[in-house]
Order: sequence, then structure tokens, then C-alpha cells
Amino acid sequence: MTPPYYAVIFTSRHSTDTAGYTEMAEAMETLAARQPGYLGMDHARSEIGITISYWKDLNAIRDWKSNLAHTEAQKLGKSHWYDSYTVRVCKVEREYAFQRDTNSI
Amino acid sequence: MTPPYYAVIFTSRHSTDTAGYTEMAEAMETLAARQPGYLGMDHARSEIGITISYWKDLNAIRDWKSNLAHTEAQKLGKSHWYDSYTVRVCKVEREYAFQRDTNSI
Repeated sequence: MTPPYYAVIFTSRHSTDTAGYTEMAEAMETLAARQPGYLGMDHARSEIGITISYWKDLNAIRDWKSNLAHTEAQKLGKSHWYDSYTVRVCKVEREYAFQRDTNSI
Repeated sequence: MTPPYYAVIFTSRHSTDTAGYTEMAEAMETLAARQPGYLGMDHARSEIGITISYWKDLNAIRDWKSNLAHTEAQKLGKSHWYDSYTVRVCKVEREYAFQRDTNSI
């Protein structure tokens, strides 16, 4: 991905009520990937969960936030799955990567 | 934290050579927390690792990137611990949070 583009950082702590969460998370990832301006997603979970979605611009983020199925998922997140979460909307200004040269091993 | 501030998103895939990694990660977290302009850190690891550090401004990020001990850690990361990683420098433009009201349960 070539900057500038946008990232939404979602950090969360789960409640003990996680019934239905995994299925919904998978459904939302599939749905997000169909949104105009979607660029990708990274996810990891240890003590906290971190999901980062990447988007072309702020309009794409707004459209995804107000997507009907996503809105329903957000309600269930608040009523059941999360004790707390933080959402950060960020402009990615610079990006660089390292890839091991497997030929040299 | 009140926007605007900066986030460095570090996503990584480990190699099979992880000797010394955990100790170094802990040492670097302690050292980063002492840097001027450091605001905090989030970390999770599943298939990939995600570490996000938060900073007051780009100068604080530059100073941390060029910190001598951190530079040595970065070299070991490339030579041993990581198969690949991506670094994204982002400006956090907006932030909001949800916290369950535990009194209402």
C-alpha cells in the first residue's frame, strides 16, 4: 500500500460473554473486504485484541462504520462481547517493510 | 490521549530463531517508555505480531528510531527474529472509546 491512506486501529478487551463473537468477526471481515476503498486488515489477540483495517480515505471509513450489518454488530459488541474498546482513525503517512531474503539462507 | 498524536504500527512475522527475543522486547518496551514524547504501547500476537507505540510527534518517533540500543535491537530483528515486518507511521486524527458500565450489570 502506498501512503497516504487511512488505518482504523481497534483495540479491545473481551467480556466473558463471547458467544457468537467469532462467527460475527469472520462475517464482518468478509463484508468489510467488499466495501469500496477497503485495502486490507491485520489482526492479533493476546491479553488485548488488536484489529487494524486499512482504507483508501475517510469516506470509505464512514461508509463502513454506517453499514447496516456492521452497525448491528457494533451494538452486539457493546451489549455482549466487549468490556472496553478504543477506536483510532489514523492517516498513514509513511510505510516501509523488511522481507528476509530466503535465497541467502 | 487527545488527537492529534502519532502511532507507529509494527506488524511482523517471526522466524523460527526466537532466542533472546522476549527479553529484548521487554527491554525495548522499558526503554521506549523513558523516551521523551512516549505516550503508550499496545501489543498482541497470534499468527502475526502487532505492536503499536504512541508518540507525541514525529520528532519523538525519530529520536526513538535512532536510539542506540534500539538500533542494535533492530539489527538483531533483521538478522534473527523476523521473516518480515512492516512499519507504518500514522497521525491519529480521531479517537473514541467504549467502557462497559460495570455498575449496571
